[in-house]
Amino acid sequence: MLTEIRIAGFGGQGVILAASVIGKAAAIFQGGYATMTQSFGPEARGGSSSAQVILCDQPILYPYITQPDVLVVMSQEAFTRFSPELKPGGILITEQELVRVDQIPTDAKVFAVPATRLAEELGRRVVLNIVMTGFFCAVTGLLDADALRKAVADSVPPAMRKLNIDAFDKGLAFGTNLKANEHLEGEPVPSMESV
Amino acid sequence: MLTEIRIAGFGGQGVILAASVIGKAAAIFQGGYATMTQSFGPEARGGSSSAQVILCDQPILYPYITQPDVLVVMSQEAFTRFSPELKPGGILITEQELVRVDQIPTDAKVFAVPATRLAEELGRRVVLNIVMTGFFCAVTGLLDADALRKAVADSVPPAMRKLNIDAFDKGLAFGTNLKANEHLEGEPVPSMESV
Repeated sequence: MLTEIRIAGFGGQGVILAASVIGKAAAIFQGGYATMTQSFGPEARGGSSSAQVILCDQPILYPYITQPDVLVVMSQEAFTRFSPELKPGGILITEQELVRVDQIPTDAKVFAVPATRLAEELGRRVVLNIVMTGFFCAVTGLLDADALRKAVADSVPPAMRKLNIDAFDKGLAFGTNLKANEHLEGEPVPSMESV
Repeated sequence: MLTEIRIAGFGGQGVILAASVIGKAAAIFQGGYATMTQSFGPEARGGSSSAQVILCDQPILYPYITQPDVLVVMSQEAFTRFSPELKPGGILITEQELVRVDQIPTDAKVFAVPATRLAEELGRRVVLNIVMTGFFCAVTGLLDADALRKAVADSVPPAMRKLNIDAFDKGLAFGTNLKANEHLEGEPVPSMESV
């Protein structure tokens, strides 16, 4: 059971921290394995940032993603570049005010969250990545909220813990509410828990 | 021309940020390519943290390290676990007060820096990873100090920039001084600039 996730946006949005929190939650707090890979190349010179996370119930031999099951995009450029790679039937998560979904990838389930605005409501725009992580938790159902919350707390300086947990919970609540109101059926991608 | 680097220590030491700064410096500010991979597994549950960085003049197809050219360790456990993997003739960099080098890997060049103490002199122990990065710059000669300095500035929040640049320069000065006094000959690993 292997789940591939790509998170992409521009520099300063905290793409890597979000990826690392998801990897930690899966491996450290939920007993699985995970890798997180960041590639730096010409595209990074343009200010774009992208990380690949693989979650598995066994050690991971090859950490490169071919077709993500879940794609999280926080910029239009990231959407344009990576949405064609999404696995048919996969989940696309977007930052609602930064990404216009002009074409939905094949059979994708699309979930949008105004993460920047929700982060600003907490007084710190910089936590938009953790709002996205909470939203990711709600709409994918891949990981336990508690495992992710612990991974968030474990990944930020003590003085920033409360703010980041609040950001996580805000994204989680937004996503839970969205799912409840959309009456979505079934699980769009296999859950790690079902392994 | 491919250079493999492993950075390892325990959680909270900023292993991932140091790895990411090195990757960014190589790719964004020096025109090469880099990948950074973090694996989360059972060992991470014990609080240890490790990242792999590959620097190359071409896109990197396989981001997993076999034998690092440079190993940076910030804990005794990291030393014990990873030092047997160091490439013969490679460079071992240690946090001087946290790692006792009881056995030197084959033909390795060993450089030790009291990074935690130097960071504490700046008033913030948390920048020990960036002190290590400055020291890494001086003793490996793999990357330009300016590229690394830009990558540091680009990787931390604006309010933390000065502190982190000071930490980088402090590690760099310590390493430069050490090399000058040890009269080392030649370059221990190939420089990216010579590609």
